[in-house]
Amino acid sequence: MTSFNPPDFTKPALSSAPEARFVPAPADGVLPENFFSTTNLPTYVRIGGEWRLPREPRMDSALVLDPAGDLWVREGRRVRKGDRVAVGTAEDGREGIYVHATAFMDEVGSDGEFKFMVSEVSREKPIDYALMASILLSERDNGGYPIWVAGPALVHSRARNDMVWFIQNGFVGALLAGNAVAVHDIEASIFGTTLGMSGAGKATQGGHGLHMRAINKVRAAGSIAAAVANGTITDGIMHACVTTNTPFVLTGSIRDDGPLPEVITDAIAAQDAMRAHAIKATMAILIATALHAIATGNMLPAFVTGADGNLRELATICVDSAEFVVSKLKDRGTHQAFGVVTNAQDFMHILRLYVERELDQRRSAVATAEPAVAASR
Amino acid sequence: MTSFNPPDFTKPALSSAPEARFVPAPADGVLPENFFSTTNLPTYVRIGGEWRLPREPRMDSALVLDPAGDLWVREGRRVRKGDRVAVGTAEDGREGIYVHATAFMDEVGSDGEFKFMVSEVSREKPIDYALMASILLSERDNGGYPIWVAGPALVHSRARNDMVWFIQNGFVGALLAGNAVAVHDIEASIFGTTLGMSGAGKATQGGHGLHMRAINKVRAAGSIAAAVANGTITDGIMHACVTTNTPFVLTGSIRDDGPLPEVITDAIAAQDAMRAHAIKATMAILIATALHAIATGNMLPAFVTGADGNLRELATICVDSAEFVVSKLKDRGTHQAFGVVTNAQDFMHILRLYVERELDQRRSAVATAEPAVAASR
Amino acid sequence: MTSFNPPDFTKPALSSAPEARFVPAPADGVLPENFFSTTNLPTYVRIGGEWRLPREPRMDSALVLDPAGDLWVREGRRVRKGDRVAVGTAEDGREGIYVHATAFMDEVGSDGEFKFMVSEVSREKPIDYALMASILLSERDNGGYPIWVAGPALVHSRARNDMVWFIQNGFVGALLAGNAVAVHDIEASIFGTTLGMSGAGKATQGGHGLHMRAINKVRAAGSIAAAVANGTITDGIMHACVTTNTPFVLTGSIRDDGPLPEVITDAIAAQDAMRAHAIKATMAILIATALHAIATGNMLPAFVTGADGNLRELATICVDSAEFVVSKLKDRGTHQAFGVVTNAQDFMHILRLYVERELDQRRSAVATAEPAVAASR
Amino acid sequence: MTSFNPPDFTKPALSSAPEARFVPAPADGVLPENFFSTTNLPTYVRIGGEWRLPREPRMDSALVLDPAGDLWVREGRRVRKGDRVAVGTAEDGREGIYVHATAFMDEVGSDGEFKFMVSEVSREKPIDYALMASILLSERDNGGYPIWVAGPALVHSRARNDMVWFIQNGFVGALLAGNAVAVHDIEASIFGTTLGMSGAGKATQGGHGLHMRAINKVRAAGSIAAAVANGTITDGIMHACVTTNTPFVLTGSIRDDGPLPEVITDAIAAQDAMRAHAIKATMAILIATALHAIATGNMLPAFVTGADGNLRELATICVDSAEFVVSKLKDRGTHQAFGVVTNAQDFMHILRLYVERELDQRRSAVATAEPAVAASR
Repeated sequence: MTSFNPPDFTKPALSSAPEARFVPAPADGVLPENFFSTTNLPTYVRIGGEWRLPREPRMDSALVLDPAGDLWVREGRRVRKGDRVAVGTAEDGREGIYVHATAFMDEVGSDGEFKFMVSEVSREKPIDYALMASILLSERDNGGYPIWVAGPALVHSRARNDMVWFIQNGFVGALLAGNAVAVHDIEASIFGTTLGMSGAGKATQGGHGLHMRAINKVRAAGSIAAAVANGTITDGIMHACVTTNTPFVLTGSIRDDGPLPEVITDAIAAQDAMRAHAIKATMAILIATALHAIATGNMLPAFVTGADGNLRELATICVDSAEFVVSKLKDRGTHQAFGVVTNAQDFMHILRLYVERELDQRRSAVATAEPAVAASR
Repeated sequence: MTSFNPPDFTKPALSSAPEARFVPAPADGVLPENFFSTTNLPTYVRIGGEWRLPREPRMDSALVLDPAGDLWVREGRRVRKGDRVAVGTAEDGREGIYVHATAFMDEVGSDGEFKFMVSEVSREKPIDYALMASILLSERDNGGYPIWVAGPALVHSRARNDMVWFIQNGFVGALLAGNAVAVHDIEASIFGTTLGMSGAGKATQGGHGLHMRAINKVRAAGSIAAAVANGTITDGIMHACVTTNTPFVLTGSIRDDGPLPEVITDAIAAQDAMRAHAIKATMAILIATALHAIATGNMLPAFVTGADGNLRELATICVDSAEFVVSKLKDRGTHQAFGVVTNAQDFMHILRLYVERELDQRRSAVATAEPAVAASR
Repeated sequence: MTSFNPPDFTKPALSSAPEARFVPAPADGVLPENFFSTTNLPTYVRIGGEWRLPREPRMDSALVLDPAGDLWVREGRRVRKGDRVAVGTAEDGREGIYVHATAFMDEVGSDGEFKFMVSEVSREKPIDYALMASILLSERDNGGYPIWVAGPALVHSRARNDMVWFIQNGFVGALLAGNAVAVHDIEASIFGTTLGMSGAGKATQGGHGLHMRAINKVRAAGSIAAAVANGTITDGIMHACVTTNTPFVLTGSIRDDGPLPEVITDAIAAQDAMRAHAIKATMAILIATALHAIATGNMLPAFVTGADGNLRELATICVDSAEFVVSKLKDRGTHQAFGVVTNAQDFMHILRLYVERELDQRRSAVATAEPAVAASR
Repeated sequence: MTSFNPPDFTKPALSSAPEARFVPAPADGVLPENFFSTTNLPTYVRIGGEWRLPREPRMDSALVLDPAGDLWVREGRRVRKGDRVAVGTAEDGREGIYVHATAFMDEVGSDGEFKFMVSEVSREKPIDYALMASILLSERDNGGYPIWVAGPALVHSRARNDMVWFIQNGFVGALLAGNAVAVHDIEASIFGTTLGMSGAGKATQGGHGLHMRAINKVRAAGSIAAAVANGTITDGIMHACVTTNTPFVLTGSIRDDGPLPEVITDAIAAQDAMRAHAIKATMAILIATALHAIATGNMLPAFVTGADGNLRELATICVDSAEFVVSKLKDRGTHQAFGVVTNAQDFMHILRLYVERELDQRRSAVATAEPAVAASR
């Protein structure tokens, strides 16, 4: 993790910067010409002689100054006619808006030295599970809000048990997924298969209809929660979310069968529901999903504002079988994503193992320490 | 292409099959226990002593016998309380339903001979552009309805011009895509970039906001058609669709910026809009999109019923940079998909080239023939 | 694992088969026209009225009957002028040679039932580590000869320690690899880096030359074994091979730096050295290498002949980050390969974990059992 | 293409640099401790107060000053006892050796602006065929020496005809490939198949042995050239090389069947044969091969020294179905490689098309110009 370099507002370019300019939106959901289009980086806006950070930062949105004088990042579709929207395209402060692109830069070798292995994401690079486990534990200890975003490979494979473990042990702030994750998970609970494939990976007789039967049972119950309550769903990821009151958002897509009752089928409503968690997120773990990972990346800032007002990078881990998804996520602007190129099942298993090991070490450290404490009394 | 083997209804197993059994749906959007879950294969249902094919076939749905005696394949969510739904799980006729899985089987070597190169989809296999071009021309000549399903790579790259050519020359029955395809295409028309990247593949200064500005202009105009009419959009794929009255469906997703006005944001409404074209489709070309390709595959039958009542395979071409999407499409049941592992841009360019060549040859064949005809008068 | 179906030699096609025909090779390294080209499947040759299995089976080779009457599978290049070589192309016995292609066939659904998830290799399928661990333990317990074939990703990542563990605990019959595996491993031992990248995956200052310095030190020592003896190499995979007397073969390629002294640079000599282990192999584990995996696949039979003369499938596990290598291996004829699509580092870590767990369980089972035994005395 | 920034030798760090220091090699094939390990970048060595560029530059090698005072880049294995070898690790001149890492740097945005689409290699980026065609034509016109390095996918697919066209039209300085390329090409000439797969991509009866029969026929003839002469090989890539006297190098690997007579089976001898062409190369086109591409990348400098002594980047195009090979090539130090993520067959077809178009345009430009010239007389 890289530390925060605060901007130097005493630099002439910034100290002499003008006020940001705001122009009323011409119509509902339409921004003024030349609106400032946000990034996910720390962005300072000059208002009343001060440099202010807007609330709820994300990329591809507008800066809106509300009547109460609060400054927000808001998607264009949510802007109403007459809202005051910042305009300008310069990101260096000369139009009153400063994007602090080097907030978290490593001291990179700018010397052009010849190097091997400089590609950012590669299956040939080691995976630092110990570091990831330690970040995840810190998040839990410090009241963080890690959001987990997962694709169906998590359920196809045996990672399902590991995901349940993370939910039950308090490591999941919220789970964001699609209909398919819940469908496969519930099929596994009811029939022991996913898409008709047994846990050993074999296609089963009559198996192709089982996910439809699972959906039908939940629709008959009225909701996933009701299907848990009535004993239809007895284990798995959705069961763990329901029984531990872990929030989840299931978003719809054109690929969905069913869908399940809780699925939010409207993409705009679904984005709003995801963003309600994204603005609270202090960490993001994106597993085996291009669609949901990029959707979440779009609405996540690259940083978290701590209780003390300091910024830190928002730890973002992206797991996929191929370099492609992580590279795409970065190409879409989520530069802080740390890529792990592996199988989702194996990632979950080893990450859990490292978290369990660290918990064991802490326990034995406490156990060792305690007698000493007792003796010193 | 493989020819149709009609089922042999004189076989004892079929000739002695019982009537299919229908049970009323217990509630809106809920199917009866033990409902028959459809596949995309020709499915014969025994009603009144006859074997009948249902209308609007697709997989993962139910068989509904309406009050007028017509038999339909219908998604569970569209079934209303009391609708008569076929039950049973056997696919061999013994419950009155026969799935004709071998309708289009090649005479495969069942002899277990040792073979190389038997994987179904591989970048190492040749691509038969001449065959694809000839199928596409036949479709146009015979009044077929080829649906094109495309992901944004079609627009990122230079394939945009080629797609316009196919639209303008009558090879596109309907275009099914997402918000991003239209956004990139319109950004290219207005600003000459896609996601801020120039046609030469370079990131441009201030480019990251251009797709948002493009969206905003269309939202201000009120619709894509209005933006074409008022001169905001002057070329490209959406322009070609609007000016040639080629139907298009833009479906929403959680990843969308904007979205553009025509985008159908509700996933269920979007599926219905896609299916309106899928039931007419006589060919499908799926390019550089996992989400839309599998969504379309889910709602396409594996076959087309000709005017003469004969069935033929529904030619389905799936183009992607990796074997994965095609394999996934097949794993989700679209076994008839023919995979082309290549870059979308190159596919479009060569396919167009082969179509143009065949058109040239036909023209010169006509030109050569005509004088002869004239001379023979 | 599938069991062996012995051929039914009483079937008329086989019981009436003629003697196999042998023709002298026209020149050294040149086979007679119409030579029989072998596969990796059990192949029975009719000689003196008997059906005989040749020794040292592999694909893409010839059947040679030596003067002593022994029957061998031999590469064309190793055949000498005048050697008696079997001719014919039929594999069904009618020319005296019978390839038993269905020796290990599962009872597959030949019914053409509609199925999901039938692709043979997919990252979406679960990985059965428990099964693999149990096969590996059985191999060790029963005096098997598992050959491990590895690419450099094994060393780039942290899997190096796990590989050492497998070597030191008797799970490795022989290690087949290229120069790069040994170079990276030795660079890691001497400098703590691989290709100049630290264990945490960062490029280091001056790092690009470290693999060359590592090679130079071993060349100065004269051999890897000498560099272990003189304390230059103090840990790692090659160190473990040397100190446990585990045989290794390092084969050369055009990509090699150095090479290290033990590397066999001639491809033909290298193949012969690999095959000396392949003919003894009872299991094969191929990790993160296309070149070496396919080279080994070419020279491995699909089966092992047990001490009792019964045949069983040769368990072949192929691990790669993408489906492609496994599919290619199968396309080249190694149909028995079981594909694991994951990161090499994660594979090694979890496989070791499962092996350790099973060893622990056995120990505690013994520990639990022993007091009982003691008590019963 | 980026232009050359010559080093500024008047900078104090360089103007005051010491002489490079040379130390005798301690043994044949062993370098002195602390030897300077080369890169593929322009490297200036201070000798007699002058900055000199060594001959035959490549990475991972040593700087050798021969008795005649000439300076060479030489692989460690080729250094003889007593040869004077440059020592030092600094690349900034302070030990008399200066690696000019910024020789071809673009004026990159060092401003940290937020950008989309910055990944270096991606299937989502456009492919500039017009630029590649124009570079290739310039190479031919200016007496360049483009080396083509190809994997077997070139022959599996229909790109074979296009490769023949490039050879016959003078665009190929030398062809570097492995045994498999020649085997598949010759199998295609003799039997019309590659690995037993027909041109339409179907496995054929008895096909698995055809490549072995093709090899056997060439071994019987004694050489590829002899098999062309005696009419065994009548078309294809190897036929074109032989009949146009285009040099080719076939290098061996452990995966080879046969091998064919011309194949250089010793990896060291093979590297020497490849390097004889690499040192003459003015352009490199690497198609569908990881092994050969990286092997060639290892021995290619990043630049060409023109007749006028000026340096220019060595245009290097790397074509593969996945981003991985290009990223790996760059990770191994070949930073100048321009990646084209597509199918080899499609690449060849479109590149040829663009070259043919430009040739047509030139011809018609000449044709148009000539009458004007005539008229002006």
